[in-house]
Amino acid sequence: MTTQPIGVFDSGLGGLTVVRALQRRLPHEQLVYLGDTARVPYGTKSATTVIRYASQIAQFLLALDVKYLVVACNTASAHALTYLEQTLPIPVLGVVEPGAHAAAGVCGSGQVGVIGTLGTVDSGAYQRAIQLMRPDLTIFSQPCPLLVPLAEEGWLEHPVTSEVVRHYLQELQAHAGNLDTLVLGCTHYPLLRQVIASEAERVFGHPVKLVDSAEATAEAAEGDLRERNLLSKARLEADRFFFTDVNRFAEVAGRFLGRPVTGAELADLSI
Amino acid sequence: MTTQPIGVFDSGLGGLTVVRALQRRLPHEQLVYLGDTARVPYGTKSATTVIRYASQIAQFLLALDVKYLVVACNTASAHALTYLEQTLPIPVLGVVEPGAHAAAGVCGSGQVGVIGTLGTVDSGAYQRAIQLMRPDLTIFSQPCPLLVPLAEEGWLEHPVTSEVVRHYLQELQAHAGNLDTLVLGCTHYPLLRQVIASEAERVFGHPVKLVDSAEATAEAAEGDLRERNLLSKARLEADRFFFTDVNRFAEVAGRFLGRPVTGAELADLSI
Repeated sequence: MTTQPIGVFDSGLGGLTVVRALQRRLPHEQLVYLGDTARVPYGTKSATTVIRYASQIAQFLLALDVKYLVVACNTASAHALTYLEQTLPIPVLGVVEPGAHAAAGVCGSGQVGVIGTLGTVDSGAYQRAIQLMRPDLTIFSQPCPLLVPLAEEGWLEHPVTSEVVRHYLQELQAHAGNLDTLVLGCTHYPLLRQVIASEAERVFGHPVKLVDSAEATAEAAEGDLRERNLLSKARLEADRFFFTDVNRFAEVAGRFLGRPVTGAELADLSI
Repeated sequence: MTTQPIGVFDSGLGGLTVVRALQRRLPHEQLVYLGDTARVPYGTKSATTVIRYASQIAQFLLALDVKYLVVACNTASAHALTYLEQTLPIPVLGVVEPGAHAAAGVCGSGQVGVIGTLGTVDSGAYQRAIQLMRPDLTIFSQPCPLLVPLAEEGWLEHPVTSEVVRHYLQELQAHAGNLDTLVLGCTHYPLLRQVIASEAERVFGHPVKLVDSAEATAEAAEGDLRERNLLSKARLEADRFFFTDVNRFAEVAGRFLGRPVTGAELADLSI
């Protein structure tokens, strides 16, 4: 069983930042990725819809014999993780709990910020996860709906992106002036790490620790697989990349994965 | 048959600008709208996927006994209109041809610009439609992927929006310095009409005529219904508004319709 692949999915391409972290940390594992590019984004959609989509994708990956499932999408983790855990025959890991754990580990000031999609923020998932670990912390959340399109368009160093980031961080700062830790609660945001870091320092008047749930999730996956005796000793096959639509992935996906995505396959979910 | 409703659909909420124009022009018609908010946006998706979605929606509206179908989405009009015309038992009108007709009617300088989603621009649909009517015109197109999220977020007068609009228009101006007509080739763009008009005047150095395909489409629908003897003399029932997802429409839809959307219903497309 240990040579079976790990399934990873996201609403689109952002989850490739998690794939990148998993590839670095678990080079002996085969990964099978599905990006639901035909229905992207999830961030503005309802919990019911996101659960339905996540469930269809999990069935697709199970049919490819995955041993473990990583939900590499914050919105899907926020809305659908409990449902997937209760209904799937394999272990499931989301990105919220690892991100929350990392934030709880580094916060010194007592105030943590979470930025993410509307769905992730409205769900309160990070808030609950962080406060379970550290009830002494106060968590402030800010939806940042324009950051996904800016990251997808590759406006990573454009002045407009700085201005939009500043706008959102100022909203956060109005309530949380003493914040020292900021969770990048969306898999697209690591691409904007530099501009978020510099605008955060400017807005808060001191450096802010950025928590990237992609890295934290890869670390959690490694620990979990080890504990469950599911770590592979040698990779038998190359990673596979499925998308529900064919458009644009070649152009944009490389930005998230850090290298070109080759041999992308079209997944038929009958949607 | 004439009292049967007119079906109108869009990828999400932008098509409500077309509903608004239809309501003004055809007050005796009952409209049944479907916004595919569970899969919005279409602008970055492939022709195959958009045709599949448009076809599912048309079947849903046919089951509600519509006499006529308005494709109130530029991307769906660009990719799926021919398919719908060939497969549906009722007449179908898209937004591209009316918009192209209006642009061909007002262009004096010989250069027309078209702004829209990636899908609309890549399809070349406006280019073909305008050149069929006026082969003397040269058409220049510019995809503006960030304008839909900015309009949906309601950043209608934000400096960031002006800067983004300016960026896209400067790209256009580099090739089309003599342009005097600009087609708003996306149903979201009428919300940004003011900022587009002022930035266009600034970038091109002279006022630019903006063509709004929502108005042109309502006018074309009226003419077409009259010609086919399908105009209703009295409306029997209120308009109906269906969405494939429940999220956010109450908040955002009113912006496009010009008044609150009441009694929205959830459409089950089994997707």
